[in-house]
Amino acid sequence: MEIKTGLLLSAIENPDDLKKLKEEQLIQVCNELRQFIIDIVSVKGGHFGASLGVVELTVALHYVFNTPNDLLVWDVGHQAYGHKILTGRRKEFHTNRIYKGISGFPKRKESIYDAFGVGHSSTSISAALGMAVADRYKGENQKQHIAVIGDGALTGGMAFEGLNHAGVENTNLLVILNDNCMSIDPNVGALKEYLTDITTSQTYNKVKDEVWKLLGKISKLGPNAQEIASKIESGLKSAMLKQSNLFESLKFRYFGPVDGHDVVRLTKVLKDLKQIPGPKILHCLTVKGKGYKFSEEGNQTIWHSPGLFNKETGEIIKVGGNQPQPPKYQDVFGHTIVELAEQNKKIIGVTPAMPSGCSLNLMLEAMPDRAFDVGIAEQHAVTFSAGMATQGLIPFCNIYSSFMQRAYDQVIHDVALQNLNVIFCLDRGGFAGSDGATHHGAYDLAYMRCVPNMIVSAPMNEEELRNLMFTAQQENMGPFTIRYPRGNGVMTNWKKPMKTIPIGKGRKLRDGKDLAILSIGHIGNMATDACDTLSKKGIEAAHYDMRFAKPLDEMILHEVFGKFDKVITVEDGCIIGGMGSAVIEFMADNGYMAHVKRLGIPDRFVDHGEQKELYAECGFDAQGIYNTALELLAEKNNAMVS
Amino acid sequence: MEIKTGLLLSAIENPDDLKKLKEEQLIQVCNELRQFIIDIVSVKGGHFGASLGVVELTVALHYVFNTPNDLLVWDVGHQAYGHKILTGRRKEFHTNRIYKGISGFPKRKESIYDAFGVGHSSTSISAALGMAVADRYKGENQKQHIAVIGDGALTGGMAFEGLNHAGVENTNLLVILNDNCMSIDPNVGALKEYLTDITTSQTYNKVKDEVWKLLGKISKLGPNAQEIASKIESGLKSAMLKQSNLFESLKFRYFGPVDGHDVVRLTKVLKDLKQIPGPKILHCLTVKGKGYKFSEEGNQTIWHSPGLFNKETGEIIKVGGNQPQPPKYQDVFGHTIVELAEQNKKIIGVTPAMPSGCSLNLMLEAMPDRAFDVGIAEQHAVTFSAGMATQGLIPFCNIYSSFMQRAYDQVIHDVALQNLNVIFCLDRGGFAGSDGATHHGAYDLAYMRCVPNMIVSAPMNEEELRNLMFTAQQENMGPFTIRYPRGNGVMTNWKKPMKTIPIGKGRKLRDGKDLAILSIGHIGNMATDACDTLSKKGIEAAHYDMRFAKPLDEMILHEVFGKFDKVITVEDGCIIGGMGSAVIEFMADNGYMAHVKRLGIPDRFVDHGEQKELYAECGFDAQGIYNTALELLAEKNNAMVS
Repeated sequence: MEIKTGLLLSAIENPDDLKKLKEEQLIQVCNELRQFIIDIVSVKGGHFGASLGVVELTVALHYVFNTPNDLLVWDVGHQAYGHKILTGRRKEFHTNRIYKGISGFPKRKESIYDAFGVGHSSTSISAALGMAVADRYKGENQKQHIAVIGDGALTGGMAFEGLNHAGVENTNLLVILNDNCMSIDPNVGALKEYLTDITTSQTYNKVKDEVWKLLGKISKLGPNAQEIASKIESGLKSAMLKQSNLFESLKFRYFGPVDGHDVVRLTKVLKDLKQIPGPKILHCLTVKGKGYKFSEEGNQTIWHSPGLFNKETGEIIKVGGNQPQPPKYQDVFGHTIVELAEQNKKIIGVTPAMPSGCSLNLMLEAMPDRAFDVGIAEQHAVTFSAGMATQGLIPFCNIYSSFMQRAYDQVIHDVALQNLNVIFCLDRGGFAGSDGATHHGAYDLAYMRCVPNMIVSAPMNEEELRNLMFTAQQENMGPFTIRYPRGNGVMTNWKKPMKTIPIGKGRKLRDGKDLAILSIGHIGNMATDACDTLSKKGIEAAHYDMRFAKPLDEMILHEVFGKFDKVITVEDGCIIGGMGSAVIEFMADNGYMAHVKRLGIPDRFVDHGEQKELYAECGFDAQGIYNTALELLAEKNNAMVS
Repeated sequence: MEIKTGLLLSAIENPDDLKKLKEEQLIQVCNELRQFIIDIVSVKGGHFGASLGVVELTVALHYVFNTPNDLLVWDVGHQAYGHKILTGRRKEFHTNRIYKGISGFPKRKESIYDAFGVGHSSTSISAALGMAVADRYKGENQKQHIAVIGDGALTGGMAFEGLNHAGVENTNLLVILNDNCMSIDPNVGALKEYLTDITTSQTYNKVKDEVWKLLGKISKLGPNAQEIASKIESGLKSAMLKQSNLFESLKFRYFGPVDGHDVVRLTKVLKDLKQIPGPKILHCLTVKGKGYKFSEEGNQTIWHSPGLFNKETGEIIKVGGNQPQPPKYQDVFGHTIVELAEQNKKIIGVTPAMPSGCSLNLMLEAMPDRAFDVGIAEQHAVTFSAGMATQGLIPFCNIYSSFMQRAYDQVIHDVALQNLNVIFCLDRGGFAGSDGATHHGAYDLAYMRCVPNMIVSAPMNEEELRNLMFTAQQENMGPFTIRYPRGNGVMTNWKKPMKTIPIGKGRKLRDGKDLAILSIGHIGNMATDACDTLSKKGIEAAHYDMRFAKPLDEMILHEVFGKFDKVITVEDGCIIGGMGSAVIEFMADNGYMAHVKRLGIPDRFVDHGEQKELYAECGFDAQGIYNTALELLAEKNNAMVS
């Protein structure tokens, strides 16, 4: 693949090169940068619409500000491809999101231009304010601190917490509101409507209608009155715009809205803002997917992260061709919740801004009165669900595993403590893949397992996911976690009638005599493969799918520890405190003594890559499990106390 | 103690009795209710100022609304004493916050009038919205849903998330903003200033100044002009107030501000609001501590929760008399951070709205440019600290252990993943005491231990706390957690020179031969007592203070498992996933086989009581540890596999 880099872009190794250009050349830089992103993402994959939408903003920011000395924080960061390309990573950009390649998000380790590592939403104002306060304290009063945040990310509560604090700290903080009316899906909530109001000046218009017509009457009273009416009009206009502004309420100076695609104008505005001290916000209107016909005019949700596509035709290339594939766990969730909700009128669906990602969009379409996209607001999503549960409803609250870290207190304090029937479907449990360390759902089994009243489960395949969902929606279950990975399951024929699974009951998948393998969740399929390979070598490993990290299947565990002195536990989650730890807690509590080897995500942050690459890296793909079994069998019993 | 209950109050068993009274009698009910709270809290302790501030609101709400059918959610809930007294708990109110008595917060298990269990801040809008949406779905369109939230709680991000969603759901939701300008300490941030602006009409006044004088000129033009000017004035007034309002921006209808201490007027306003559908907010101005001379006029922070006091003189009664007491861990933290910050210019202090509770107020007073109270905003507090750390500063971010659950994602995503030098001082680790289940810091060792890069420590006494703080502020430590309990330590002479503690290094406190006890944190003092008692019986228990739950002191553990086959672990934290689990993970990983008994907080929510009562209940006070040692020694080695 040969990517042609535009003339101006190919001369830009870092923002200093950009600064050598004339303002009017920036338009061409933008065009070339946009084309470069299209060229690479179409064949390599990655986030798309967001980066196209901020091309002009990216160029203008690096042109006007003195990065990396001035500190630029991109909220979420999936829109920072242009930023990466302009800051020394153009030549590596084709490795974006690929194992051992550059990250799809800004990352401090990767570049001094990445002022703050991101991935999750709504952190930028807090981080940039921290930097600004630090520099004020150090007397570095010329340094600028810029947070670029989308209107979607602004719905996250911590963004508001940041604004509330920033408004009373007199620092060089510029918040750029990148308003494209979208999260991954269309943005929702009152704030979004408010921003639309500002943009179309409805707020202003409403007042005008009530008062302006009276001014017209005054002006008929004579020349002196005309002059007064005119004065009132102009005074009123500026006062109204200022006072009616939510951001001004929070002590920010508000500027805008401005066209986020006019790079020359943006440059001028940013230069002006650089001279204004204190907290200020620039409201930029942008179009997600801007400048590429198919994304600009098509479905912006699809073009958020389209996978590979033919850049000429806009055709999105199907992975796996036309072979029948096992479905994504996401789609199994989406279809199953609709199926269950048709039977059980108490079921409600809730997602914080991930309807297409988790497939709750199927329910939002089928039963819009019973499914809620609450915006990027994980904390609210959980407590809102708790509120519904107090009134006898049964909410399925679907949140990505790593995002659920945002609502941990609400899980404990609002749901578990009150023993409410809320079902947490944790999507992206385990390795998220190419999104990397910020998005891996590594800790959920550990942080959920220590919460009283919480049932913690993970299905090994599509049928199991359906059965767990069927089980969870039955009466008086209390808090119930079902975690499953991103991506495809293993069954092409998965739409079978659903059955109740007894709580805390695992399954024996295979009998054995040499050792036992206990797995939880989808990763159990790797254990199955390992058992097959072991069997070919004459080693008979018993395999149990635990299903539940809590409560544990004690009958299985008594059987295992009664029969085997060598046990492997396998999970796609942190080995500290996870299912394997639960098993050895059981062992210790019950006076068993076996050699237990826990496989799972080690105690370090794992970077991005395909899931199978990461399983292998961490030693719990089929090969890794197989190797561990051989090592364990080769070991002598080395008990030092018996 | 004889508490006299007022004439009207003594006839009120539940809100139905209240409703039988005439509006004008409500003033007397308020007086009697206020006196009752003063009488009981002065001799029994508890939260004070907040409940006095909402006496009129409480009476008016129960008078106007049809509780418990209408659903009333108190944010935080420490202001709900009046609510408890009016809803069937007057006679039990003297057991408030006492072991086995009623809870200091609303609690669903306790009463049908407690629509939602609370304790942590900022949950009420989300919960009430969930209820309102549920009732709308069920067709119960007459039901009212009320969230009472303070201006302090409104700074928490999830309150904003709730508003953002509620603004676009057409439900019967009434938010009552109880604006007293206080959290526990004076409220901070831009929102607070904005609310003050509304209250004093500065927003309105600013515009008025620019325009009104022009209207004056018009009116000189003749009778017709006078009439027009008057019309403009009134149209403008209502338009300005409405349009300049932050809550109206979020699609709420805003009413107020009203005097929150005029019960008759409140009753009329609430009756009106009942008739207005959709989301609405009533802004009530109240005074914390209202109606009791000493709290109303004195230091509101002290009167938030004053302990016992002489109600006649306002004198607060010192616990423990005039004997020299070991200091509170809180005060050791407060004095030590000031001492360290004087030596190390990089140190910054951060607290989310708990300066007096955690004693960061000492630093806020001593070095106001280096200490920040960011309001009730745990998420922001952590990421703000992370931002400062990127610029080379060393923030001590002090958050109550149970509140840190709010910022778990920020700990992982913004601090640990970037390996930044942020020191988390988790106050109220372990049992919080009379605040109960919502406030116990039960999960911190477990949820912090699974986070990569995180050092997790807990000091056994004041000197250790100082040494850990001294150690943590040294260069390149990365994320560092120090958790310690609420209340007094054990040393009267604690202000000694500080020493560096090697990371992951525990201490052997006592040698032994019969068994080993491994403890972490303050609870180790109970283990010391148990060892003394065991020794008197001829049993020699070795005692190790592990200091670190992560990294573990492997040298100690090799010694322990090499020498002992009976081990007890003790921690004031959940036994699932905590320090004891770390020890048995080590045991399993290293092929040791000993009988390990883990003591700690069991897998259930533990109610309120004094810390020592709860230690005893859970079997890890000195007696419990002693008993466990005897049981363990009496057991045969029951290894089923060797």
